Amino acid sequence: MNTILEYQGILENEIQKISFPKEPANLYDPLTYFLTLGGKRTRPTLAMLGANLFGEPGIKALNAAIAVELFHNFTLIHDDIMDDAPLRRGMQTVHEKWDTNVGILSGDALFVVAYQYLAKHDVDVLPRLLEIFSKTALEVCEGQQMDMDFETRDDVSIDEYIEMIRLKTSVLLGAALEMGATIAKASKEDAQHIYDFGMNIGLAFQIQDDILDLYADPEKFGKQVGGDVIANKKTYLQLSAYQHASETTHGTLKTLETETDLAEKVSQVRSIFDEIGVREMAEQKKEEFYQNALTAMEKINVPAANKENLLGLAKMLMSREV
Amino acid sequence: MNTILEYQGILENEIQKISFPKEPANLYDPLTYFLTLGGKRTRPTLAMLGANLFGEPGIKALNAAIAVELFHNFTLIHDDIMDDAPLRRGMQTVHEKWDTNVGILSGDALFVVAYQYLAKHDVDVLPRLLEIFSKTALEVCEGQQMDMDFETRDDVSIDEYIEMIRLKTSVLLGAALEMGATIAKASKEDAQHIYDFGMNIGLAFQIQDDILDLYADPEKFGKQVGGDVIANKKTYLQLSAYQHASETTHGTLKTLETETDLAEKVSQVRSIFDEIGVREMAEQKKEEFYQNALTAMEKINVPAANKENLLGLAKMLMSREV
Repeated sequence: MNTILEYQGILENEIQKISFPKEPANLYDPLTYFLTLGGKRTRPTLAMLGANLFGEPGIKALNAAIAVELFHNFTLIHDDIMDDAPLRRGMQTVHEKWDTNVGILSGDALFVVAYQYLAKHDVDVLPRLLEIFSKTALEVCEGQQMDMDFETRDDVSIDEYIEMIRLKTSVLLGAALEMGATIAKASKEDAQHIYDFGMNIGLAFQIQDDILDLYADPEKFGKQVGGDVIANKKTYLQLSAYQHASETTHGTLKTLETETDLAEKVSQVRSIFDEIGVREMAEQKKEEFYQNALTAMEKINVPAANKENLLGLAKMLMSREV
Repeated sequence: MNTILEYQGILENEIQKISFPKEPANLYDPLTYFLTLGGKRTRPTLAMLGANLFGEPGIKALNAAIAVELFHNFTLIHDDIMDDAPLRRGMQTVHEKWDTNVGILSGDALFVVAYQYLAKHDVDVLPRLLEIFSKTALEVCEGQQMDMDFETRDDVSIDEYIEMIRLKTSVLLGAALEMGATIAKASKEDAQHIYDFGMNIGLAFQIQDDILDLYADPEKFGKQVGGDVIANKKTYLQLSAYQHASETTHGTLKTLETETDLAEKVSQVRSIFDEIGVREMAEQKKEEFYQNALTAMEKINVPAANKENLLGLAKMLMSREV
């Protein structure tokens, strides 16, 4: 059986089995609700694959994996409040279905439960797991704050953008893998390499996300193509466009930010992006991160066969169309 | 030197020394700001006194103590958002000085830092410390949710109220002491007793809080006397009054809830409370919890001299006028 699918199955099953107290209903019902919204469980799968890579059964990292997934869901609940998002995976967000206070507090509670899962690990690895987990959690907060700060700034550099996505989304992929590696008693060097692998895959993944927003096949994408353009969101594409645009084009892009015919806006912005060649720039940056990831993986001192699952997953993530 | 004052001094000094990264400023500046607002540092002092009780220097529990204080401040930042409170210790709350999103996210970050301090403890006590800390953190969330639920309910029983204040405020006092006791390698039984001591002192303290709101000496109190009455807040006094009021008095109390002459409202409500004798009921309940605390302390198997600090602190908390 395919290891990745097997791990995803185990995780989904375990996550659905998590049982919260009945009362107070307004604290715990939102958590049961949110955890049934699904998702690909990519991050916890990485924790299990991280252990597997170093010759241990992935199941040994199950509690750390669940901690990572609960943490991720906690950040989604709070981010949805901060972004005032009505929907998550096509369903109402917690603060929409209940209210903002419920979103804040049930998110807090979920964060505690994440630490409770992590604390189930043996003391021979617990301190290092806590160290990775807490450091990463702080970094994710930093990334989210940078993202919010960017909304009102017009001088965001591409380097700052990369740093923001690194903190907000990529470090958690690296951390999940490193936690699995730690549980499998990988060497310090190998633990660092697998972290670097995950973080670079995360960066490539996020740039792919930016590309897909505008260049996905609408029939396959499932979301509105051009959503970031419509929202004038700072993405790798947008920042590259502004950086390389002539003064005239720069002005046109600025004007288009207030265009109310949204189909027209997306179409014109795409034309300008194509002219500047920002898609190629983004593809190149994505490839750079992907190659960094592969280089990190090469340095890891385990049989080549052990690497197949993660290399396959990385390749799949890179070529995704949705 | 008085041990309590000494510990408070050490704690205040350590807390002021906590240095957060400079960036993102909107994530970390609010934490530096909030932690300088002061407070009596009662909870972390209890963690140090918990170790001291069992013959260890309180300083051994310093990191757990700081974790408790940071956790407490995290809950205050989030509670202030949920309660829409403009002021905390006479200064602007975080969400007022910045905004709600900053309050949510910087609170989250502070919670992570609390766990980072806790994780500094040795592995021989770390799992138990994490267990106490996370369990208590969840209970505090439950208490806050109950408190919010109470606002829109008119059938809150006194038992439910006691359970709410137990969760929202009292368990953290017990947990702080038990964490100190755990670090000092107290027996399981003694750890339970000191937890019970702290929790009962917390319950007595909270009822004292309810009493003081209406019966404090205005010259000493520093806050508006009758604030809970003006806000129609469910307190031990209010719930007791409604429970023991005749049908007519019940109606009068209901009518007074919408009285706009606030001085008149407070004065009339106090007259009714006095007639029913709710202050005596509250004093009796407070004394009951205080005696429970003393009974728990008696069971602890350490020299009487070791108990003096905590018994003195408890006595002081019970007779406070502000």
